[in-house]
Amino acid sequence: MSTPFDLDAATTAAAAAARSLAFAPTAKKNDALTRMAAGLEGARAALQEANRLDLEAGEAAGLSTAMLDRLALTDGRIDQMAEGLRQIVALPDPVGGITRHEVRPNGLEIAKVRVPIGVVGIIYESRPNVTADAAGLCLKSGNAVVLRGGSEAIYSNRAIAEILAEAVAAAGLEPAAVTFVDDTDRALVARLLKMDDRVDLIIPRGGEGLIRFVTETATIPVIKHDKGLCHTYVDRYVDLEMAAEVALNAKVQRPGTCNAMETLLVHVAVAEPLFERFAPAARDAGVIVHGCKRTCALLAPVMGDQLVPAAEADWDTEWLSLDCSVRIVDSLNEALDHIAAHTSHHSEAILTRDYDRARRFLREVDAAAVYVNASTRFTDGFEFGLGAEIGISTNKLHARGPMGLEDLTTSKYTILGSGQVRG
Amino acid sequence: MSTPFDLDAATTAAAAAARSLAFAPTAKKNDALTRMAAGLEGARAALQEANRLDLEAGEAAGLSTAMLDRLALTDGRIDQMAEGLRQIVALPDPVGGITRHEVRPNGLEIAKVRVPIGVVGIIYESRPNVTADAAGLCLKSGNAVVLRGGSEAIYSNRAIAEILAEAVAAAGLEPAAVTFVDDTDRALVARLLKMDDRVDLIIPRGGEGLIRFVTETATIPVIKHDKGLCHTYVDRYVDLEMAAEVALNAKVQRPGTCNAMETLLVHVAVAEPLFERFAPAARDAGVIVHGCKRTCALLAPVMGDQLVPAAEADWDTEWLSLDCSVRIVDSLNEALDHIAAHTSHHSEAILTRDYDRARRFLREVDAAAVYVNASTRFTDGFEFGLGAEIGISTNKLHARGPMGLEDLTTSKYTILGSGQVRG
Repeated sequence: MSTPFDLDAATTAAAAAARSLAFAPTAKKNDALTRMAAGLEGARAALQEANRLDLEAGEAAGLSTAMLDRLALTDGRIDQMAEGLRQIVALPDPVGGITRHEVRPNGLEIAKVRVPIGVVGIIYESRPNVTADAAGLCLKSGNAVVLRGGSEAIYSNRAIAEILAEAVAAAGLEPAAVTFVDDTDRALVARLLKMDDRVDLIIPRGGEGLIRFVTETATIPVIKHDKGLCHTYVDRYVDLEMAAEVALNAKVQRPGTCNAMETLLVHVAVAEPLFERFAPAARDAGVIVHGCKRTCALLAPVMGDQLVPAAEADWDTEWLSLDCSVRIVDSLNEALDHIAAHTSHHSEAILTRDYDRARRFLREVDAAAVYVNASTRFTDGFEFGLGAEIGISTNKLHARGPMGLEDLTTSKYTILGSGQVRG
Repeated sequence: MSTPFDLDAATTAAAAAARSLAFAPTAKKNDALTRMAAGLEGARAALQEANRLDLEAGEAAGLSTAMLDRLALTDGRIDQMAEGLRQIVALPDPVGGITRHEVRPNGLEIAKVRVPIGVVGIIYESRPNVTADAAGLCLKSGNAVVLRGGSEAIYSNRAIAEILAEAVAAAGLEPAAVTFVDDTDRALVARLLKMDDRVDLIIPRGGEGLIRFVTETATIPVIKHDKGLCHTYVDRYVDLEMAAEVALNAKVQRPGTCNAMETLLVHVAVAEPLFERFAPAARDAGVIVHGCKRTCALLAPVMGDQLVPAAEADWDTEWLSLDCSVRIVDSLNEALDHIAAHTSHHSEAILTRDYDRARRFLREVDAAAVYVNASTRFTDGFEFGLGAEIGISTNKLHARGPMGLEDLTTSKYTILGSGQVRG
């Protein structure tokens, strides 16, 4: 670039855009979203040309195949971005929704109304589709967004962001509502994270290193989308067929996601019959079991070299792969203690036929999502009926679990009176 | 004290207490609250004896009369603490409340359930009644509380906290649910603020210096209860009698509070008739007007030496006294611009008969509470029907405005299935 990026001017413009966007009519915001979708589809060639520059630079820099795959803007991914934006059009506008309303004895009419948060900063890595997804959700919820993507995707992100901002302007809204930090200087991120006078929320999306840097640096409130170390506990009273199927799904359906199972806990009374059903399918799917002693003894004949003894650190490892820690426990208490000690508070499941044990698990496990008899893979904004998600919050405050449009709002009390004074 | 206070052990015990308190039955929590109230009433003499030590130390240290007054545990204040706890008994338990529920097409039954946050740290100054008020609200919402009061109230706070913890134990709950940091060493506060592995939320209550220290030091999420620089705008279309009465109430009814009016904005078209009604009463109530040029010209005859020209800094000053900034504006736009430039986003009011102007003010003003035709003094948990409040949040995330029992909870998704797997 010829001139350095002016972060002060850009964030000031974003804050100004947020003020008018806060009460933009839904129809206007939907018009912008529809234009965004059409814009991306119409610029397919240009997007893929920009993406090619990122891919070539990535190859030259020796990025892994997995990284290059995440980076690629295939036809399918461009379609998905456009389709995602159109799905956001169809979602209800959260702004203006009333979450509490009361007429007080003195006649004051008090309502708690959903309003946009203001300016949301998204710090993300690799996947250029986040640019469109995050901008769409922020725009629909009336927030300006400041996007800071990874340097490896700079050409792709810039091309996408330009199209989005043009669509916003064409709909008659401030283009700074979608502000792209068009500079790969890492020092800018640190500065952005301290602009608490104009940025209201930071959402980091990426690896542990990024999230640690953001939480340690930011003076702005951060909603983390941190790791998921999810357990599935197979209770002694259980439908074994169901348990084997659900545990397998939680592990293998998409092992690289934060809601995949990382540790399987099995009650000793059903370990043998459960493994009979689970292990052959797991082996065929490529699962590597990191087993406790008793697990190893039972599974050695079936798993062969796909079985290794679990190291102590394995119980705290988010594999994000076909690896799976497996431990046999003697009681529900032992399962609950194991989970309390190792949980990332993301998604935890019990598989049981016992009513009291199900209720106890639901009550005592401290996690964003607690399941009875279902795969943890369902922790997701779409699957939960929120329509879309900007991520899965591992925070306890403001938003916990899949974070949809409503979680991108805050509240304002409006008080309608007729001259009331306090006595 | 003979041995230094063990903050690590105390906060570890609080976190353990939080785990069991999270699903304690309402009846047990109410029993503890009732015992707390009775315990305080029964220990009146001992409390006042402890308080005498604080007051004597305060006098010796040269505390102001206002500070000493805030510190004093009069009979009335002990009654108020007990009464406050009994009022909390009467409030509904927020834990377990369902805020969202849906049966998904695949049969998964998904509920969003209110659960306690965990361990709440309260950092406060001067007023010993906060010890009982905060502990009561945290207990009812299923949270353990770690209380760190000001050194000037150490004897009083210690005496109150001991009674509270005994009551908790007598009700069969973990006494560490009410943990008092019995040490006045300031370094302990800095350590507490970084214990994000066991403390989930910090609420500072006190002056600007305390709040700045807490927000700059904490790695734990903070909900600020910061200053209120509240405006009342008297529109050109207005019932002048009502406007004068409401503005006066907002200023003088209790000027030391964060929801009192600090700046009065008056449309030029009604400045003269409004001042005719407002100024004599304000003068008699002891109000000192810091007026803009036009205000000074109009008010000089009435206010005499209770009128001074406003300095530029006055528009950003939270007086917390009978001082009042007054500015004449030429339009609603100018009023909105003034508020946008100087608001603390706490409570703002328009006094008007005009429907469109009322709606515009409600929509465009960015504050926790926005009023039409009422005194800003109503921004308060009791007045808003929340039952009680742990403070008035000036944050945008998690809680904004009066913060009641529901705001002391977070959520957990519970998912009931029958073997669902993701395809």
